[in-house]
Amino acid sequence: MNYKTVIFEKIANNDLVVGIFGLGYVGLPLATSFAQSNVKVIGFDKNPEKVKKVNLGENYIKDINDNDFREVIGNKSLVATDDFSRIKECDAIIICVPTPLDIFKKPDMSYIIIACTEIGKNMKAGTFISLESTTYPTTTENLMLPILEKESGLKQGIDFWLGYSPERVDPGNDTYKTKNTPKVFGAMSEDGIEIGQAIYKKAIQNIHVVSSPRVAEMVKILENTYRLINISLINELALLAGKMDINIWEVIEAAKTKPFGFQAFYPGPGIGGHCIPLDPFYLEYIAKLYDFDLSMIHTAGHINMRMPHYMYMKITSALNKNKKSVNGSKVFFLGVAYKPNIDDERESPALELIDIVANKGALVSYNDPYISKITTHKKVSLNSIELTAKTLSEADVVVITTNHKDYVADFILEHANLVVDLRNVIDSKSEKLYKL
Amino acid sequence: MNYKTVIFEKIANNDLVVGIFGLGYVGLPLATSFAQSNVKVIGFDKNPEKVKKVNLGENYIKDINDNDFREVIGNKSLVATDDFSRIKECDAIIICVPTPLDIFKKPDMSYIIIACTEIGKNMKAGTFISLESTTYPTTTENLMLPILEKESGLKQGIDFWLGYSPERVDPGNDTYKTKNTPKVFGAMSEDGIEIGQAIYKKAIQNIHVVSSPRVAEMVKILENTYRLINISLINELALLAGKMDINIWEVIEAAKTKPFGFQAFYPGPGIGGHCIPLDPFYLEYIAKLYDFDLSMIHTAGHINMRMPHYMYMKITSALNKNKKSVNGSKVFFLGVAYKPNIDDERESPALELIDIVANKGALVSYNDPYISKITTHKKVSLNSIELTAKTLSEADVVVITTNHKDYVADFILEHANLVVDLRNVIDSKSEKLYKL
Repeated sequence: MNYKTVIFEKIANNDLVVGIFGLGYVGLPLATSFAQSNVKVIGFDKNPEKVKKVNLGENYIKDINDNDFREVIGNKSLVATDDFSRIKECDAIIICVPTPLDIFKKPDMSYIIIACTEIGKNMKAGTFISLESTTYPTTTENLMLPILEKESGLKQGIDFWLGYSPERVDPGNDTYKTKNTPKVFGAMSEDGIEIGQAIYKKAIQNIHVVSSPRVAEMVKILENTYRLINISLINELALLAGKMDINIWEVIEAAKTKPFGFQAFYPGPGIGGHCIPLDPFYLEYIAKLYDFDLSMIHTAGHINMRMPHYMYMKITSALNKNKKSVNGSKVFFLGVAYKPNIDDERESPALELIDIVANKGALVSYNDPYISKITTHKKVSLNSIELTAKTLSEADVVVITTNHKDYVADFILEHANLVVDLRNVIDSKSEKLYKL
Repeated sequence: MNYKTVIFEKIANNDLVVGIFGLGYVGLPLATSFAQSNVKVIGFDKNPEKVKKVNLGENYIKDINDNDFREVIGNKSLVATDDFSRIKECDAIIICVPTPLDIFKKPDMSYIIIACTEIGKNMKAGTFISLESTTYPTTTENLMLPILEKESGLKQGIDFWLGYSPERVDPGNDTYKTKNTPKVFGAMSEDGIEIGQAIYKKAIQNIHVVSSPRVAEMVKILENTYRLINISLINELALLAGKMDINIWEVIEAAKTKPFGFQAFYPGPGIGGHCIPLDPFYLEYIAKLYDFDLSMIHTAGHINMRMPHYMYMKITSALNKNKKSVNGSKVFFLGVAYKPNIDDERESPALELIDIVANKGALVSYNDPYISKITTHKKVSLNSIELTAKTLSEADVVVITTNHKDYVADFILEHANLVVDLRNVIDSKSEKLYKL
């Protein structure tokens, strides 16, 4: 019996063991989704804290339903471990590790390299492997494949199958979760496509197959580059609109009445999250190898890098009206999450803005109902303070950096001395209101 | 009785005369839509040919239903004239004149200036005036208003009302026509908003009011700038994808399976039509006045200006495979319209591509089922030839420049020696097929 027959029998009998490599905001929901279909899942993470939490049924990902999580932990469908030798127990391994940029904004592939090395060393023949981390096209074929074949001594397409399927996790999205978000998938061989599709079907409703891993890699980059350049465009237009006495938010609302050919994006103090500020730069990186310059991404990156500095200028202009400098002023930030109603501040432009004003001598405080403490890039550590009439009125300027649903426009405007609203939370005219 | 009361009585009694200034692809459908509501419409155009055609019931705009047109001409709801002194018969005047760019891609405001001068000279007190031509924000307030007040000796807000409402005509769109496409409208005074809304309601179902003409002007620019930068992005990514052995069309189809946060755009030999290649540059023009550089638009413009030249390179690469040069080769273009299934070739990138290859010594021919003859920018005059097995096989290379529904992939691929498909008409693998 060959490996393909074996794995298809296991799939048919629901006798499959799926390993999820990396238990973050992508891996843990996926692991839970598989486990809910009664697939046995082993979650791997090198962080023993995460492993411990998972095994105790402590859910640390907001998008996962707590009851669902407790159930799959309770019935042992999902177990976590930091023991990579257990990789050999798995019939399929799905890699969900981070692909950050380094401080010079170059792709940091170390997590993928470590994952592939561990998997190559430990996997058994007949394993299906898929990468979900966002990365530049050709990563699966040119970076992963050689490591896996070298470390394992096995041959792709014969002894194991390799593919790529980008995660499409949208934190805070109440409609589209892991299970009902269509999944794009490409593999290096026909068998790999068949097997991968059958496996992913256990956890995800719709699989869209493409002809190669590099096409699937490009899909994810296109999706997020689309967002990057549109946010950049509207940020740039917002700055011009401010100079022309045009309310950009009103413009966007009106443009949305066009029933075809338009999708609304909103300006803000910069771009945040784990995808949009990063993904396009993977592509820009690999493009150099092809002597190609991605001018749209480059320009968009330039605009967004400058946004926090423009927002700093907005704050200084507002304070200037009251004859105050940033140096010595009390600046109270509302919201540090990178988007509304979520508990994640990594890559948030608010952190950068806090660093800028703190560095200029401001006395900084913040409120975020979802994030109780932060440490900025420049190691400013703060605890969230309460949002009250008193905390608002004590600040020289209140800066709205995230449009959490908890923020009540009238209350803020009533009690603050000066408001810089970077998220269109307050839709009224006032002498003390400055808007992006 | 003041002017406002008079015009509202006329609106209520359907006793209104609406003048439409400019009888092109915007003005004539709008005139027809008003006339269909039994509003008396006078269409003004300085071109006596157009005036004659309209009065004979000869419909020259594909998006207008022929029967509808004959009916409103037949019952005299709509009459056309080149006699501008009849402006004084009108209670409302809507300006739908062209706003092209000059050869240095600077806005050419002469049509608006002429319209305002004629209207100012001839209008009676109590007239409502609205501009629909796409233009840079502040045009209505800073360019039109002074001319109208000077020529008429009347005061805006008292003796007449001025507003702006961008046309959203999408030629070839079978779902959204003049009547059912929501209309954005801003005026210079409260009375102007009330009156304008009531008048437009006669011809259009939904009016979205904004706070000023400049906001309305910006809305239109945003809508089309959105399209420009997204087409530019996908064009740039298509060029890179070609180098990376990635089928960009497959990438786009897969990205479309994302149920949120993505809208598909398609690459092509450049951008065409009366809006997307022009509108963003009005904004870039006025931005200079505010010491502002619109880098996204600038970069997008740069990419699209180069696209026909890249497409020329594709053609040379294809011919090169057969050891042929462009010089002396027969190049057969399929489609000169700027988008599928319409009869309009103005601003079409196909014309520019024809000029480039003709200038390099190619023997150029074309087929377009909707456009029987063309004259390019460099004055190359051609008649459409038949698309047959013979005409295909006689060409050294067939270049698909518009994806008209009439083009049958298999037939073209069977008979052509070499195909450069710039529109993803042919979705198969072949040695003789080159795709963007």
